[in-house]
Amino acid sequence: MEIRTILVEPKSEENIGAVARVIKNFGFADFYLVNPPDIGVKAMSVASHAYEVLKTSEIVGSIEEAVENSVIVAGTTAKHGISANKHIRMPFFSPRQLKEKVEGIDGGKSGVVSILFGREDTGLKNEELMLCDIVVCIPTSHEYLVMNLSHAVAVVLYELSEVRMASTSGPMLKLANVADKERLFVHVKTFLDEIGYREQKKEKTLLMLRRILGRAELTGREVRTLRGILRKAEWRIGDVRS
Amino acid sequence: MEIRTILVEPKSEENIGAVARVIKNFGFADFYLVNPPDIGVKAMSVASHAYEVLKTSEIVGSIEEAVENSVIVAGTTAKHGISANKHIRMPFFSPRQLKEKVEGIDGGKSGVVSILFGREDTGLKNEELMLCDIVVCIPTSHEYLVMNLSHAVAVVLYELSEVRMASTSGPMLKLANVADKERLFVHVKTFLDEIGYREQKKEKTLLMLRRILGRAELTGREVRTLRGILRKAEWRIGDVRS
Repeated sequence: MEIRTILVEPKSEENIGAVARVIKNFGFADFYLVNPPDIGVKAMSVASHAYEVLKTSEIVGSIEEAVENSVIVAGTTAKHGISANKHIRMPFFSPRQLKEKVEGIDGGKSGVVSILFGREDTGLKNEELMLCDIVVCIPTSHEYLVMNLSHAVAVVLYELSEVRMASTSGPMLKLANVADKERLFVHVKTFLDEIGYREQKKEKTLLMLRRILGRAELTGREVRTLRGILRKAEWRIGDVRS
Repeated sequence: MEIRTILVEPKSEENIGAVARVIKNFGFADFYLVNPPDIGVKAMSVASHAYEVLKTSEIVGSIEEAVENSVIVAGTTAKHGISANKHIRMPFFSPRQLKEKVEGIDGGKSGVVSILFGREDTGLKNEELMLCDIVVCIPTSHEYLVMNLSHAVAVVLYELSEVRMASTSGPMLKLANVADKERLFVHVKTFLDEIGYREQKKEKTLLMLRRILGRAELTGREVRTLRGILRKAEWRIGDVRS
């Protein structure tokens, strides 16, 4: 199992360097940058002995490319779900709860767990958070919610480093990949249309289902069974219709 | 009870500013500096909205002055007690263990818990560590032990903020209770019958669904929405049937 740190459109190269250092401090290496600024000597200097984490980082043009092959995609936010977009940011996990989640699937030791960190000023956009299986929020003070980017990464990777260091031997779980899950969500969407689900509730419900199924860490077999149930229900509707 | 962050002879004013921000992020305010450099606009800029933590910090000339009135003095080190000065750095506490320790004395709710962080390059000296009641060590990778100063503070205060918040905040997720979930499972079972799901597969599938939904830690609202979808599908089957 691999923990991938993904910075989405970071603005400061110092922050990128600081995050590289944190990644190495906690024994990780997988580092993706979505549309970063130019990375030069400043980033290298802050990265210090973690320069190779910086040098081997992957630069991509979209979140979709960054999360490829992930079994879990977690998005971080400083907003505690109390905004107008409550349904997008709730329910949220603390870094500790994220660790427990990842520990649960560690038995399989396969696949990538991707953690997205947003822009320094505006964080992740709502539509970016909607791509995530899990929303993670570091419990900070209401008087100053927003942490510096690299500090937020430090806290999350500190928690997850415990998973890396724990020598575990659990049952093998073969988790579904992003493409399998996406097919399931498309199927669910079609199904809601077929049963005449209320249009104005549909988006919210789909997001909720994505979160529920994301948190559940579905295996490939479970995805197939869920789609089998949907198919059976669709046939039933078709049967009695004809 | 009060958590006091003490930086011992920090060299970089940016780090001082970054630590001020972390202190405010986690809801603390008590900040001591032992022989710091001049603090100017750079520190203020990094502190951002935590400038008043910086402005109200106490500048002292010795560790003894900084830890006055403390009930516990904890010193941090990046060295995992494997050096020649083993007895000074052992046994060490993880930040989590420090939190548990502090929780243990929280009943009294009086006094100051002081956490010392050393110089960016050389950390705390042996004679400084010997002043401490507890040595705290963040479990980092052997390939890169030493964290950036403000990141180390972030990890320790993140753990200790739980002590502060424990009494003030409830559970973050309002989870569905057992009865709600049971009603959902009964509903799912009925639904499988209604769509004519294969009898010999039904028990296995129900167990799988129970596991999936169990792992997802459903909230009460999510249970209601899921049952709403089932109801809608049932009506659809009934509609087209009649």
